[in-house]
Amino acid sequence: MTPPVITFLSDYGLDDDFVGVCHGVIASICPEARVIDITHGVPRHQVRAGAVVLRSSLPFMPVGVHLAVVDPDVGAERRAVAVGLADGRRLVGPDNGLLSLAAQAHGGIVEAADIARSPFRLEPLSATFHGRDIFAPVAARLAAGARLADVGAPCDPERLVSIELPRPVRQEQAVVAHAVYIDRFGNVALDVTHEDLAEAGLRLGRLVQLESGRGPLTAHFVRTFADVGEGELLVYEDASRMLAVAVSKESAAKRLGLAVDDELRIAPA
Amino acid sequence: MTPPVITFLSDYGLDDDFVGVCHGVIASICPEARVIDITHGVPRHQVRAGAVVLRSSLPFMPVGVHLAVVDPDVGAERRAVAVGLADGRRLVGPDNGLLSLAAQAHGGIVEAADIARSPFRLEPLSATFHGRDIFAPVAARLAAGARLADVGAPCDPERLVSIELPRPVRQEQAVVAHAVYIDRFGNVALDVTHEDLAEAGLRLGRLVQLESGRGPLTAHFVRTFADVGEGELLVYEDASRMLAVAVSKESAAKRLGLAVDDELRIAPA
Amino acid sequence: MTPPVITFLSDYGLDDDFVGVCHGVIASICPEARVIDITHGVPRHQVRAGAVVLRSSLPFMPVGVHLAVVDPDVGAERRAVAVGLADGRRLVGPDNGLLSLAAQAHGGIVEAADIARSPFRLEPLSATFHGRDIFAPVAARLAAGARLADVGAPCDPERLVSIELPRPVRQEQAVVAHAVYIDRFGNVALDVTHEDLAEAGLRLGRLVQLESGRGPLTAHFVRTFADVGEGELLVYEDASRMLAVAVSKESAAKRLGLAVDDELRIAPA
Repeated sequence: MTPPVITFLSDYGLDDDFVGVCHGVIASICPEARVIDITHGVPRHQVRAGAVVLRSSLPFMPVGVHLAVVDPDVGAERRAVAVGLADGRRLVGPDNGLLSLAAQAHGGIVEAADIARSPFRLEPLSATFHGRDIFAPVAARLAAGARLADVGAPCDPERLVSIELPRPVRQEQAVVAHAVYIDRFGNVALDVTHEDLAEAGLRLGRLVQLESGRGPLTAHFVRTFADVGEGELLVYEDASRMLAVAVSKESAAKRLGLAVDDELRIAPA
Repeated sequence: MTPPVITFLSDYGLDDDFVGVCHGVIASICPEARVIDITHGVPRHQVRAGAVVLRSSLPFMPVGVHLAVVDPDVGAERRAVAVGLADGRRLVGPDNGLLSLAAQAHGGIVEAADIARSPFRLEPLSATFHGRDIFAPVAARLAAGARLADVGAPCDPERLVSIELPRPVRQEQAVVAHAVYIDRFGNVALDVTHEDLAEAGLRLGRLVQLESGRGPLTAHFVRTFADVGEGELLVYEDASRMLAVAVSKESAAKRLGLAVDDELRIAPA
Repeated sequence: MTPPVITFLSDYGLDDDFVGVCHGVIASICPEARVIDITHGVPRHQVRAGAVVLRSSLPFMPVGVHLAVVDPDVGAERRAVAVGLADGRRLVGPDNGLLSLAAQAHGGIVEAADIARSPFRLEPLSATFHGRDIFAPVAARLAAGARLADVGAPCDPERLVSIELPRPVRQEQAVVAHAVYIDRFGNVALDVTHEDLAEAGLRLGRLVQLESGRGPLTAHFVRTFADVGEGELLVYEDASRMLAVAVSKESAAKRLGLAVDDELRIAPA
């Protein structure tokens, strides 16, 4: 039989032992679980960045228990939850929206449990490390066979916190997008679909004009990095099927002066 | 049957292949072992930081073989050892104090072997990478069923190197603590217990005065980050049950100008 | 039975979810495979650095499937390949030389398949993330029992891209070496063997003179770091049995102003 899978995403980084300790807790409770680290490099406390990465990575993960911890309000009154999705996946994490985008993309939440007082949490409960004391042990119990009803008190899926992403604005012959996620190379994912672009008169193979705070710049709308020269701006569909802006071998975020949520106007050149 | 567990802590970092190569050596010798990386982000050559992290993380690890390598004197005359603790755990690493705090916290060392000339070390032995050539293979052999007597020459546990941490000094209405460990967020763990604080007249919910080299600053003595506003100093019990100083969403080490071993005077405000 | 092993090396870094997503893809296809991360810290797009690390780490890995992705030309016309070596190892990655040094060191390539249109690639194929869409799924299929002939179209091993490293130049009483690899500590591995040094009159225990762009410096030719004082230059045989230059507790690359491929003249002092 295939061993149960737990995936794990956080903003803990790898410099300290936060991630390793959670792995230890999981292995102590469910030694047969296989743990896949999605990433622990989510920028600190950036719940939305974590939610975007969880949403885009989850389709490539085996169905299992999906532990996610970006938790700036640990120790305060935010809920801790485990939720079951329509497709059988179960997500565990703080109720601050972190799980919401992935949940929506996988059929929505069909069942939820408040796990703040889970019988499986570690005691004494710390005020600052619920990844270790609540989330990891609950994820491990679920992987070991527990049902949602075993790990916490039922709660209403409708009342969980959701994240709303900004929406692109279509203008005459242009679209105003937002920076949704910036990776470590400075590639900027936008909230625009191919369809939005087509309606604005933008076509693959053509030049486009980008306007951020820094004045207009010209970019190539192409398939991939290799289609432009080093140092040139390109607009392309990234591997998560989001439109993105990049500079071959450099940082588009720097070139365009873009941070998450900033606007970028795209128009035919 | 549950597979054997090897935990692994080092200052190798993840930029190079040091950690990966040790994993390869372990998998070649004991393919069934599950390896848990505690962290490889211990600051380079800082044996004491490694010892503190090993001590605080070990209670959350399954009982197994615990490999630790922070080894500034590799190739010189420091011993290489494998030790057995009273609680059944076995630790493997350089004899420079790295293992000592964890060993003390788990009942002390009941048996020790000098593994510099272990029959299981890899040949040719390098002068600079004993993690690969001595520590990983010995850890893997222990996980695969070897006893301490098989992997090296018996040696006297009393003669192994220990680390002494500084101790806090209680003053009239104050306590002088030391920075023991600083994590990547700049949170500073101190060598003070709740008891020390109570005796100095410091109570949860009150204000305290902190004095480092930079003059007096006021902090809140609270349970968690969420109890103060962004940018405010707090004193709290961290997840390892050590007293710590932090700044919500910033670095307390920077704010207070603290490095490891520095003194911090704490008094009622 | 021992589970199949997949090793994984890339320049993806750990800040984003690239590595985690590839792990997810592998676990979805071949849940029983054990994945060993060699490193994901190869400097971005530096194919040769990746090739050198793969060559030096492979001897310590169990025989298995060895996935490697440093792929600056993803989406362009470079081939994607899976190759079988004389010693039974199978390597998967872009055909840009990344696999070539390891292949040469393990008996050479006896069989090769072009996997760009592999029946096992993920659809829709992205233009920028072939690690996820081609290389990881093919590696997982091989680990699960597929033969090279199953995963792609046969191609001629002779026609694959090779990397040529620079060669040291022997002079009268000196040798001119090149920086081949610089690790995160600033230690510089050179393309010189012990034999080259002996012929140039250089002997262990003696002083040598190093000349880079920055004028002559004196170094000790010793066994290990502990043989010199802090801040002193040393020349030594590193753990991969390459000659290397280092500064105890500092960066030799900075001290000597060396980047990869730069020349360094070594002569008796």
